[in-house]
Amino acid sequence: MPGPAHVTLHWKEGMLFEGGRPERPSAVIDADGQQAPSPMDALLLALAGCTGADVVSILKKKRADLRAFRVEVVGERRAEHPKRYTAITLTYHVTAPGFARDQVLHAIELSLGKYCSVTHSLAPDIALRHELVLEA
Amino acid sequence: MPGPAHVTLHWKEGMLFEGGRPERPSAVIDADGQQAPSPMDALLLALAGCTGADVVSILKKKRADLRAFRVEVVGERRAEHPKRYTAITLTYHVTAPGFARDQVLHAIELSLGKYCSVTHSLAPDIALRHELVLEA
Repeated sequence: MPGPAHVTLHWKEGMLFEGGRPERPSAVIDADGQQAPSPMDALLLALAGCTGADVVSILKKKRADLRAFRVEVVGERRAEHPKRYTAITLTYHVTAPGFARDQVLHAIELSLGKYCSVTHSLAPDIALRHELVLEA
Repeated sequence: MPGPAHVTLHWKEGMLFEGGRPERPSAVIDADGQQAPSPMDALLLALAGCTGADVVSILKKKRADLRAFRVEVVGERRAEHPKRYTAITLTYHVTAPGFARDQVLHAIELSLGKYCSVTHSLAPDIALRHELVLEA
């Protein structure tokens, strides 16, 4: 999706916001994290969605029998303002019977190293780690 | 919300993902941008939610009569992989009758300069600009 991205986020009430691209489905963000993901959680979900979509696409192209896939993300934050991320660990859980671990790792590394636009929009001093769990 | 953030994003089908914190409301991400915001749009929404929540909180603490608030975000991207953001412009639209422009600008600058954890998690070479539109 090249070209400029353009979204608008509207304040609803309290710490609740809703928005997205014009005439496209919207998302809800709740800075209190009660009714929807908080902004910092949404950042991790954007990261997981970006690299997750890359890895699913690559595995599908390689004709993997992909039965389940999820990305767990843990982000460590500074204690003081700004409470930015200092380290992020991505754990990929992949169920693709008969597909080699090395090939899945290669897909993950292609995504993180080359394709994932969210990864490369993050501050480079955030320590980004990845792990792979192959599930039956 | 200090302490490590922990989210899990599950692949549903096609390029559709859903997830969030355990036992908290989830969000949907669609890498094709059809059924939900794409990962790169979600990143901008996270940024808008972060700084938006800061600014709304500050204005409320200063007893502004805040009637409407939205943040428009335009992100420019590289043409080649990784198609990361190179510049982001935030336009704050604020309806707060009787509240001085300088005070709103100060709130925005406090957020972007000190409080907003998402801003400070982004790559520092992304040119971040802000504008303020006071509405009647």
